[in-house]
Amino acid sequence: MFSTVAPAKAGAAGRTRRSRFATNPAAPAFAGATILALLLATPALADGLIDNVNGITLDEQGRVQRFTGLVIGDDGKVKALLDRRDKRPKELDWREDGRGQTLIPGLIDAHGHVLGLGFQATSLDLSGTKSLAEAQAAIKAWADANPSGSWIVGRGWNQEAWGLGRFPTAADIDAVVPDRPVWLERVDGHAGWANSAALRAAGVTAKSVSPAGGRIEKTAAGAPGGVFVDAAMQLVQKAVPQPLPRERDAALVKAQDILLSSGVTATADMGTSPQDWAAIRRLGDAGGLRIRIFSYADSLDTLTTIAGNGPTRWLYGDRLRMGGVKLYADGALGSRGAWLKAPYADAPKETGLGFLTDDQLQNQMSRAAMDKFQVAIHAIGDRANSQALDAIDELSQTYKGDLRWRIEHAQIVDPVDIPRLARAGTIASMQPVHQTSDWRMAEARLGPNRLVGAYAWRSVLDGGGRLAFGSDYPVENPNPFVGWAVAISRVDAQGQPPGGWYPQQAVTREQALKAFTIDAAYASFAETKVGRLAPGMQADFLLLANDPLLASPGELRAMRPNETWVGGKRMFKR
Amino acid sequence: MFSTVAPAKAGAAGRTRRSRFATNPAAPAFAGATILALLLATPALADGLIDNVNGITLDEQGRVQRFTGLVIGDDGKVKALLDRRDKRPKELDWREDGRGQTLIPGLIDAHGHVLGLGFQATSLDLSGTKSLAEAQAAIKAWADANPSGSWIVGRGWNQEAWGLGRFPTAADIDAVVPDRPVWLERVDGHAGWANSAALRAAGVTAKSVSPAGGRIEKTAAGAPGGVFVDAAMQLVQKAVPQPLPRERDAALVKAQDILLSSGVTATADMGTSPQDWAAIRRLGDAGGLRIRIFSYADSLDTLTTIAGNGPTRWLYGDRLRMGGVKLYADGALGSRGAWLKAPYADAPKETGLGFLTDDQLQNQMSRAAMDKFQVAIHAIGDRANSQALDAIDELSQTYKGDLRWRIEHAQIVDPVDIPRLARAGTIASMQPVHQTSDWRMAEARLGPNRLVGAYAWRSVLDGGGRLAFGSDYPVENPNPFVGWAVAISRVDAQGQPPGGWYPQQAVTREQALKAFTIDAAYASFAETKVGRLAPGMQADFLLLANDPLLASPGELRAMRPNETWVGGKRMFKR
Repeated sequence: MFSTVAPAKAGAAGRTRRSRFATNPAAPAFAGATILALLLATPALADGLIDNVNGITLDEQGRVQRFTGLVIGDDGKVKALLDRRDKRPKELDWREDGRGQTLIPGLIDAHGHVLGLGFQATSLDLSGTKSLAEAQAAIKAWADANPSGSWIVGRGWNQEAWGLGRFPTAADIDAVVPDRPVWLERVDGHAGWANSAALRAAGVTAKSVSPAGGRIEKTAAGAPGGVFVDAAMQLVQKAVPQPLPRERDAALVKAQDILLSSGVTATADMGTSPQDWAAIRRLGDAGGLRIRIFSYADSLDTLTTIAGNGPTRWLYGDRLRMGGVKLYADGALGSRGAWLKAPYADAPKETGLGFLTDDQLQNQMSRAAMDKFQVAIHAIGDRANSQALDAIDELSQTYKGDLRWRIEHAQIVDPVDIPRLARAGTIASMQPVHQTSDWRMAEARLGPNRLVGAYAWRSVLDGGGRLAFGSDYPVENPNPFVGWAVAISRVDAQGQPPGGWYPQQAVTREQALKAFTIDAAYASFAETKVGRLAPGMQADFLLLANDPLLASPGELRAMRPNETWVGGKRMFKR
Repeated sequence: MFSTVAPAKAGAAGRTRRSRFATNPAAPAFAGATILALLLATPALADGLIDNVNGITLDEQGRVQRFTGLVIGDDGKVKALLDRRDKRPKELDWREDGRGQTLIPGLIDAHGHVLGLGFQATSLDLSGTKSLAEAQAAIKAWADANPSGSWIVGRGWNQEAWGLGRFPTAADIDAVVPDRPVWLERVDGHAGWANSAALRAAGVTAKSVSPAGGRIEKTAAGAPGGVFVDAAMQLVQKAVPQPLPRERDAALVKAQDILLSSGVTATADMGTSPQDWAAIRRLGDAGGLRIRIFSYADSLDTLTTIAGNGPTRWLYGDRLRMGGVKLYADGALGSRGAWLKAPYADAPKETGLGFLTDDQLQNQMSRAAMDKFQVAIHAIGDRANSQALDAIDELSQTYKGDLRWRIEHAQIVDPVDIPRLARAGTIASMQPVHQTSDWRMAEARLGPNRLVGAYAWRSVLDGGGRLAFGSDYPVENPNPFVGWAVAISRVDAQGQPPGGWYPQQAVTREQALKAFTIDAAYASFAETKVGRLAPGMQADFLLLANDPLLASPGELRAMRPNETWVGGKRMFKR
């Protein structure tokens, strides 16, 4: 089903076989002209054409451009966009009939977790469960189906989706799997749920203390209840066996397949570990890396070990680069780790968890910026966002130039802080689909008066800021069409709430497309390579049955690509 | 002075410009033949020739083959060896006149520390010092010349070379540099020497305890004296700042230059750290890796993180591969860390340091072997060597196939153990130049009765074992011609002792050449790529003023290459 990186095989649409030779388009200089030089200098010999498409791209200003044919060079880059009147090239190496499909630039996810997606897909996934009982049944079924091996590791639970009204407990798992350690991460990765066997294996007792930036959920008696939030997760996680390299390699390939089949041709990886990087390089070395990965290291140590003195080169034909580091200012809203300026509406003694002091945050940012690495700061609560903006303002005194600071999520921002994004050229890397997953929970956590700056995409744009869209997979489904539909409508899969949630924050179809393409690329210094279809840019595109600029939100939400092309080669076909 | 990886510029010898196109020698298949295809299929268009040489290589059996011309394909591999009678090809892309120089295969160092060599060359180097006073003067001079920066870090001291009769002390450094922490590694990397400021910075006191496998040298009063042996080095090392990435990158380039100018075209790296690997990949990604590096990870964790499920591919055109892991069974002889069956002659209460229990060693070897990684075990003392051989015998029951176990150094081997090398196909990776550096010290450490199996190269071969030679740089000078001279003569630079030290252990010139080429390649699964000049092998070779097979040991010791070629490109020219 999936093509390899090698040139695509001849398809039903009458393709001639592609030339494999002389990939360097610059003709060599011989002492004395030869027929050879003349032949090589004839570009048309190596081009391809996808014709008869409803072609859409945005220009650098974000205005829609339309075309009906796309000429691709044998270097995998766009050669030309043809409209209806243009003559088609005569000398073509291959030609595809687009059959009236809509062709758009490949969509770019500015915030995902590649290996996380892969591991979720290859391990116990509780993200579909609608009740604690359903989750317990799934855990038991997995244990029965996977009797060998000690630990059961999984992900995806969300007590809000269960309507539980409380965190789950160790006893809830003990009831179905008492004899093996079980460790399950919450859907957002910001909390973990252990059974008693896992607590014993990790040596966690009533005397255990959470590190700063974390919280052990306790029973009324003061014993560990089974759930660990943010930094406290480490207390159990350190006992969980690491995945084997072959499991990591398999997870990576699976993630790549999922993303390409969803229409994602490039993605940021927000927190690449040394093991993740090595797995991606193994795949790239083998010629199997098909998607483009913009890597952000999971720590300064990982960053400087791997990248050295500054961002790496673009590797594997513009498919991989480590350009910066992921930092965390706070936790997540659902687990009350997001750091707020005022207490949680539903937990008046809590304001969340600020992970770093101002000095710590600025020191880490400084270490990155001094070597021209990019900084991506996770900030969900309004207090965390203002801390991040303060830090950016402070460091911008020292570090000049095109640094492209990023705030990831920027989920709950005090409206007075929103204009500060544009002032420093900071990119708001936001994930529309969070809004529809979270809106009821957000209302509970924040009360009615703090929602003005929540998931405030339109306000960011109106304030002059730049918006990069993504999904935060596997916390959410990676499907970019769902994000696109939500971005324009503010309604969830059930069309709730009617008319959209704070619909004044919706953006236009074109604005959302720009955030899922050009500005997602810009957010990773990739805007000269991907994000638009124009001569010299990579030929990354999707073929769709329908036109997303005309579709209703419901139709848009349901879209899947018929084909996904990366670097002028077909990488997925439905 | 040094060429880059790009094709060499036209030289004085009348070279025509090389073709840059169509590096894939397999002509493409076109539907319909074209002139293009015919032209590409003509191999001679892309070949080069080095003519008029006294060409020497060994065949697979180690027999000398001679030739006068070497034809190299544009893929950088040997096309043909021509003798005097053979017609020279007419269609050549370039041609060099060897002017009667001797051409031999590039020499391969089967045991070195690439970044160690580079750091030594770019930091305080005490390896030439002949007395404590000279070392103190060098330390002071370095401190004066490098006033900024806190720590002074250096390497290369050897109290035996100073004739000191004891280890140096912290007070010895305090006398010249009292106010900055100083940390100096012994020449063999198996001991470290700190001043008082370093002890304070690292928090080392009279209460500090050495980890297993190490020793804190103490004063009569029981306080730390300043020297830390083997595992105890960590007590201070953990406080030493890591090199910056740019320092590591500079060290790598420097090491490469030193090796190529010495005539080394490929080397094993015996203990690659994650930072080292990343630096080598950065250089390779930039097209700057000229030498070939056979990497052995510094730990199982490094190995599985980087390589995953098994040895990596060959990267950068057969220039880099991580194929195995470096383990340590004991320390070094000079610091009495080598693990002996009977006590040291000059320290009757000590038998040295066995670093691992039998179980630990076998478990680590097993973890590597189960994924077909190679294992290289440092074993210097006779007890360590027999432990390693026991472990190999044990694991060979479980792990079949072509595993190529390696023992590094195999320096002092009980004669009864020597035949066990061949039985399991174990490779003895030995460094001839150790013998001449060590012989007086070895006599002191071992007494007269345990020298039969010391540096016993001939016995290894006679026992049917395979010998891979190297230098263990930067513990020793990387110059392979010095090692070659010692291997055949058993005398040091001063010709001592007369007639050689236990000269029955000398090998022939051809045997030494085989150990520095074919079998060094075999020791890293590279024998189909390098080590011999034959069609299909990489064109890695040296041009020398004289014939090493005819030279006296003194002449051989002094040899340096006029030119060093790797992959059919000139990488060094004197």
